[in-house]
Amino acid sequence: MIVTAEINLQTKGHCDIIDITAQVAKHVGKVGIANGTVTVFVTGSTAGVTTIEFEPGLLADFKAMWERLAPQDIPYDHNQRWQDGNGFSHVRASFLGASLVVPFTDKKLALGTWQQIVLVDFDNRHRSRQIIVQVMGE
Amino acid sequence: MIVTAEINLQTKGHCDIIDITAQVAKHVGKVGIANGTVTVFVTGSTAGVTTIEFEPGLLADFKAMWERLAPQDIPYDHNQRWQDGNGFSHVRASFLGASLVVPFTDKKLALGTWQQIVLVDFDNRHRSRQIIVQVMGE
Amino acid sequence: MIVTAEINLQTKGHCDIIDITAQVAKHVGKVGIANGTVTVFVTGSTAGVTTIEFEPGLLADFKAMWERLAPQDIPYDHNQRWQDGNGFSHVRASFLGASLVVPFTDKKLALGTWQQIVLVDFDNRHRSRQIIVQVMGE
Repeated sequence: MIVTAEINLQTKGHCDIIDITAQVAKHVGKVGIANGTVTVFVTGSTAGVTTIEFEPGLLADFKAMWERLAPQDIPYDHNQRWQDGNGFSHVRASFLGASLVVPFTDKKLALGTWQQIVLVDFDNRHRSRQIIVQVMGE
Repeated sequence: MIVTAEINLQTKGHCDIIDITAQVAKHVGKVGIANGTVTVFVTGSTAGVTTIEFEPGLLADFKAMWERLAPQDIPYDHNQRWQDGNGFSHVRASFLGASLVVPFTDKKLALGTWQQIVLVDFDNRHRSRQIIVQVMGE
Repeated sequence: MIVTAEINLQTKGHCDIIDITAQVAKHVGKVGIANGTVTVFVTGSTAGVTTIEFEPGLLADFKAMWERLAPQDIPYDHNQRWQDGNGFSHVRASFLGASLVVPFTDKKLALGTWQQIVLVDFDNRHRSRQIIVQVMGE
């Protein structure tokens, strides 16, 4: 059995990290599937999905890590070709990955207490984002 | 319902990035499953799978990022032990990840217009690659 | 059909890399499902899951890569707030990812000969870890 939903949200870009755990858990809770997996997938090539302890210190640390690893201000061929200035956003997104799969049993996600599901929007501007939340199980 | 296929292709190694979206979409389109997920998994420990906007600027930027983060020319214990010179390939592959899961509804993958599924071959030589494409759904 | 199990193990933290392939394969082999996927998910926000060629050289190389990319000894806001000193552990875990999905056919995982499934524990102390292994298929 499969039930698919969308989460639609507005982001500020620039490594905006948004906690979507409650929305994912709500979808899992209401679809009538006890055991299975939920696949969380972000449509687009400048955002990714992962888990993190959602507290302000780590959100800052995670952003700082990305700025060290794929800085905004180094030259990118993408920027030269397309003049949109978001080459750093793309390489970060490809690095982090667009999908996350979380198992659940008795409708309870296998997350730790301090482990939240987040969208990370790396783009260099505000964006409207669509996240697919697909529950599969029995 | 589950249908499994393989994509077999030749790569040049050295961060060769190959767009496999059309082959994945074709498999999803023909198996008679309307809604579900497709799991894309690369067999082997020197390649990975992700999504990217498949345009030449970003392909160069992504390769440059890997060369910054896990350079080919620094010492690797793996190279000292095995003399095959691809320590950088292995650590990059373990970092990027071997699997990607993409949901689809009405046989349409949840990809963005500028978001392609790619194999990234990090090895230091030409390779024959086998990619598992498994569709699960109803 | 879905069967869920747990792997419970003790780690040493500090980028301890533990091969869990045999335990995952054993679970896949005994649940009576021929074809499908196994989702491997680690509960908690300071560990991740990936595949690697499990040999001592690469384990050292992989650890060295993490120390270059997210060093233990740089300032982390998380450490200032919580005084637990594991900011580096969290950012590494969010980067690597908590889930891995591996397809199997005829009960055989799609892994390469030199491709093992590993838990990577980034925390700065010994930990008891719970890994969810969920098999879905037919």
